Amino acid sequence: MYDQLRFDYLSCAGHPHLHTPNFDRVAAKGLRFTNAFCQSPVCGASRMSFYTGRYASSHGAQWNGFPLRVGEHTLGDHLRAAGMEAWLIGKTHMKADAEGMARLGLAPDSIIGARQAECGFDVWERDDGLWGEGPDGFYDEKRSPYNAYLNSKGYPGTNPWADFANAGLRDGEIASGWMFDNADRPANIREEDSETPWLTTRVLDFMAQAKGPWCAHVSYIKPHWPYIVPAPYHAMFGPDHVPPATRADVERDDPHPVHGAFMGNRIARAFQQEEVRRKVIPAYMGLIRQCDDQLGRILDTLEADGQMAGTMIVLTSDHGDYLGDHWLGEKDMFHNPSVKIPMIVFDPRPQADGTRGTTCDALVEAIDLVPTFVEVAGGTVADHILEGRSLIPWLHGATPQWREFAISEYDYSVTPMRDVVGVSSRDARLFMVFDGRHKLIHAEGGFRPMLFDLHADPEEFHDLAKGDAHGDVIDRLYGHLARWGRRMSQRVTRSDAQIEAMRGRSLTRGILPFLKDGTEVPEAWLQAYRGPMEQDFRADRAEDQE
Amino acid sequence: MYDQLRFDYLSCAGHPHLHTPNFDRVAAKGLRFTNAFCQSPVCGASRMSFYTGRYASSHGAQWNGFPLRVGEHTLGDHLRAAGMEAWLIGKTHMKADAEGMARLGLAPDSIIGARQAECGFDVWERDDGLWGEGPDGFYDEKRSPYNAYLNSKGYPGTNPWADFANAGLRDGEIASGWMFDNADRPANIREEDSETPWLTTRVLDFMAQAKGPWCAHVSYIKPHWPYIVPAPYHAMFGPDHVPPATRADVERDDPHPVHGAFMGNRIARAFQQEEVRRKVIPAYMGLIRQCDDQLGRILDTLEADGQMAGTMIVLTSDHGDYLGDHWLGEKDMFHNPSVKIPMIVFDPRPQADGTRGTTCDALVEAIDLVPTFVEVAGGTVADHILEGRSLIPWLHGATPQWREFAISEYDYSVTPMRDVVGVSSRDARLFMVFDGRHKLIHAEGGFRPMLFDLHADPEEFHDLAKGDAHGDVIDRLYGHLARWGRRMSQRVTRSDAQIEAMRGRSLTRGILPFLKDGTEVPEAWLQAYRGPMEQDFRADRAEDQE
Repeated sequence: MYDQLRFDYLSCAGHPHLHTPNFDRVAAKGLRFTNAFCQSPVCGASRMSFYTGRYASSHGAQWNGFPLRVGEHTLGDHLRAAGMEAWLIGKTHMKADAEGMARLGLAPDSIIGARQAECGFDVWERDDGLWGEGPDGFYDEKRSPYNAYLNSKGYPGTNPWADFANAGLRDGEIASGWMFDNADRPANIREEDSETPWLTTRVLDFMAQAKGPWCAHVSYIKPHWPYIVPAPYHAMFGPDHVPPATRADVERDDPHPVHGAFMGNRIARAFQQEEVRRKVIPAYMGLIRQCDDQLGRILDTLEADGQMAGTMIVLTSDHGDYLGDHWLGEKDMFHNPSVKIPMIVFDPRPQADGTRGTTCDALVEAIDLVPTFVEVAGGTVADHILEGRSLIPWLHGATPQWREFAISEYDYSVTPMRDVVGVSSRDARLFMVFDGRHKLIHAEGGFRPMLFDLHADPEEFHDLAKGDAHGDVIDRLYGHLARWGRRMSQRVTRSDAQIEAMRGRSLTRGILPFLKDGTEVPEAWLQAYRGPMEQDFRADRAEDQE
Repeated sequence: MYDQLRFDYLSCAGHPHLHTPNFDRVAAKGLRFTNAFCQSPVCGASRMSFYTGRYASSHGAQWNGFPLRVGEHTLGDHLRAAGMEAWLIGKTHMKADAEGMARLGLAPDSIIGARQAECGFDVWERDDGLWGEGPDGFYDEKRSPYNAYLNSKGYPGTNPWADFANAGLRDGEIASGWMFDNADRPANIREEDSETPWLTTRVLDFMAQAKGPWCAHVSYIKPHWPYIVPAPYHAMFGPDHVPPATRADVERDDPHPVHGAFMGNRIARAFQQEEVRRKVIPAYMGLIRQCDDQLGRILDTLEADGQMAGTMIVLTSDHGDYLGDHWLGEKDMFHNPSVKIPMIVFDPRPQADGTRGTTCDALVEAIDLVPTFVEVAGGTVADHILEGRSLIPWLHGATPQWREFAISEYDYSVTPMRDVVGVSSRDARLFMVFDGRHKLIHAEGGFRPMLFDLHADPEEFHDLAKGDAHGDVIDRLYGHLARWGRRMSQRVTRSDAQIEAMRGRSLTRGILPFLKDGTEVPEAWLQAYRGPMEQDFRADRAEDQE
C-alpha cells in the first residue's frame, strides 16, 4: 500500500510522463481494477476500512486519530483464524482505543493488547512516516525506529527525518520539505537512507525469515507529503511533465457550499497556483518513481527466491491527491483524483492465467481486500462482519453478480472547513454513491447534493444537481444510499450459519410456548411437563390462600 | 421493568377492568409518557437498547440470543463513570459474547468479564424466568437460584419452576402453563413463593443493604408467558373482563406479506380463537395485578425508609403483547399493542413538581432512559455513544426541541416466518418510522411498505400503502428513515468535546503541511525546521549519487 498515490500516476494507468515499470510488471502479470474506490478519502478512515473490511460508518474510526473501537474485528483476526499470520511493515495511521482497552483491562504490552493497538497486526516495523516536533508531535504516539536508523547512519539531531529525509538545503540552511518552495530541491540525504528504501530493506528482512503462510501489510508513507525526494529522483521530472490541472471555471460558479469551502482552504489555494504545481508535482512523481524502483527490489527478491509463484501481490493506495485538480489540494472529496485508487492484483494460481495483463471495470471497494485475503488463506469469509466481497471471481475470469454502487464517506468534523460550511460536528459528513456512471455526493446539513455524469463528463466539471433536470437520477442514487444506510452492519456476533442453526430451535430445547392443549407438538416433547403430582402437592394452592 | 406488559393494561392508561393502584400511584406522583416506544418488539433486542441507549442496528444484538458485542458501552459503564452503581435484579435476556471475550482474553469470572457478560450490570440476582428442560434448555446458560429457592420451600424435582410456579393441576397431574387450556387454573404454588413476590423480596433485600448512589434494574419476567398465575390472582378476572380483540376483516384482505406471514403462525392462530383469549387474558391480567401488588411492597418500603424523596422510579416494559389484536399473538410487529410501552417516571426533585400526575405525548424511545439516568447521576451524557435523549426536560416542565420521528426495528431472521415471507437472513428485517401521526413500516426484500394514519385510524386497521393516494406521506417517512440510516452511530471513540479539541491541532503540534514558503504561519512555528546545517551535511547529496 502506498499513501496518497493517485490511480492515474502510473504508466500502466496511462500517465504520459511517469514511467513505472515495476507497477506495470505486476499489472502485466495480474488484473488491474479501473474502478476501485477507497471508503473514505483520508488516511485513517480509509485504512481502518482496509483493515476491517467494513465501511467507515460501520467501524466508526471516521477520521485520522479517531481510535478504532476495541474489539472491532480486523484482517489479523480473520487471517489468524484461517491459519495465516498478519504482519505490519510500515504505516497504519492506527490510534489505539486506549479508553476501551483500559475499560476492558487489556494491557497494551500483552499480545492481545498489542494487536488491539495495531489494527490486529503483529508488528515487524511500524512507521507512520510523519514526525512532528516535541513531545506533543502529531504522530508521536508510536515512534518508528527510522530516526534512530538515521542517527546510526550519521545524521545528527533529534529529528533527522525532518532535517534530512524531508528537507533540502538552501544557502547552508535547512530548507524544509514542509514548504512547497523547496519541493524542487533534493532531500539532503543519501538516497539509500531515505524512507522508502529503508522500509523496503525491512520488508526484505521480513521475507528472509518469514515462514508461511503469511500476509504482510507493506505500507509506505510515500508519495504522501512532504513533497521532497532525494537525488536523483528530484531531477527526473520537471515542469514540462506536469499535466494541466483538471479544472474548469464552471466549478467555481455557484459551487456546492462544501466544495466551495474546500476550494478556499490553504492547500487548495496553494495548488491553485501554477508555480506550486510545477514544483510539487515533479517531486510527487519522483517519489512515485522511487517507490517503483523499490517495488522492483521486492519483486526481484521474490523471483530470485522462487517465492513469486506462491505469493499474491496487491498494489493499492489509501486515497489519491488532487494536486490542483478541481481547484483542490489533498484529498477529502470525491472527484476521481481523490477517491479512486490504484488496485492491481497478482494471483499466482493457474486459475488466474486468463486475466493476466487485463483490466476490470467492476465497482471495487477497499473493503473487498479482507474477504479476498481470507479466501486465499482458505478461511470462511465472515459475511456478517465483512462488508466487502472477495475479488477472486474476477481474478479467475468469472463475472459474478456484483454491487450496483460504490460508497465512500468523509467526516470533516475536525477540519476548519466545518466552520466555513457552518454545520455541527455530527452533520459534518459527506457520502458518495457511484453507480458506474452517475456519482451523487450527499452532504448532511440540509444542502443540495452534487451530481456528476461520468459518461458525458468524465472530468466531473458539471454538477447536474444545480438544475432541475436530473431528479430521477438523484432519487435513484438516494435510494441506493438509503438502502446502504439500512444495511446490516453491526450484527457481528451471529453468523449466517449460526442463524440457520437457531431457526425454530426453541421448540426442541424445552420451551413450549403457544400451545393450546399440547396436540400441536409430538407427545414426547410434553413429557417433561406432565406426569402425576406427588400427594403433598395435589392440594389446590388456592385453598391455602383462604 | 416488566416483560411483555402492554401500555394499555394499566388503570392509569385507561384499562376498563384492570385496576393497578400502585402503577397509578407512581403515575400520580410522576409523568406518564403516552407515546413511548421500544426499539424492537422482542425481548433481547429491546433490552439491549434499554441497556446501551442505542438502536438495535447500532448495538447489533438484534434478536434473542444474539450476543451483545464485547466492549459495547452499557448503562453500567456510563453510570459508574458518574459515580453511581448499576445493579441487576431479575431478567436481562443477555447473552454474553463468548467469542469476543475469548478473543480479547477476558475471563468470565473477572469483574470486567462478569460485567461484560451481564450488559454491564453487577448482579444482585439474575433471573431470566424461563426454564426449559435438560442441559440444552433455551435459557439454561444462566441458572437463577429460583428453582433452588423452590426446592428449599419444599417443592420437589429438578424444575419446580415448570412443575409448580408455571403449572396448575388437573386430575392430580401437572397441568403445564405452556398450554393455554390451563391458563385459567391457579398455579400450583403458594402465592408468596411465586416468581414475582420472590424477586420482590430480593429487591427489598438489596434496598436494605444498598448504599447510594445506586441504580437498580428491577426486572420482572411477568406478565410474559407462560400465562398462569397463582391464587387468588387466577380468579380475579374472567371472560367478562376480556376486551374485544382490536381487529378487522379488512386486515386480512390482501395483507402485507409480512403481516400475512405472522397472522398465519401458531401463536396468532391460537389467539384468533376467542376461547384462547378468554382463558389467557384473565391470567395475563392476574399476572399484572400481582405485579402491581408487589410494586406496592417496594413503594411502601421506600416510603417507610424515607427513601422515596431520594429515589427516581421508572416503570416500563420491553414491549407489549398482541393478545389477538390485529389477528396476532406475541409481539414482533409494530401495531401499538406490541411496540408501544408503558413509561411512567417519578422524579422526586422539586423541579418535577409541575408535571406530577400529568401526561406527555412526546415521541419517547427506550433509548432515552440511559441519558436520563446519566443526567440524574450527575454525569456527562456521552452523545457520541448514546442515541437517546434525556427525558429530564419533560419531567421538569420544559418543552425541548424534540425528535420528529421514532424508530423501531425487528429482525426475524431466525423465525419460521422468514421462510413464509421468502427472504434471506439479511433481508428478514423490518423498520418502523412513526412521526406522531403516520406510521410507516418498511420491510427489506422488495415489498411495498405499510402505512397507517393514527389520527384517522387509531386502531391501525387500514394500510394506506395499498393504494396510490399517500405517496407524499410515504416519501416523507422514507426520508426520515434514510436520515436515520445515515446517523452517526459508531463514532464512539471520539466525543464531541474531543473533536472540538482536535480542530486545527495539527498546525500547532509540529506538523506544518501545505506551506508555500512559510509566510503563512507564525515564524516561531518554523524554527524547529530551520537553522544552519552542520558542515558535514551541507554537501549536496545529489553529488553523492553521481
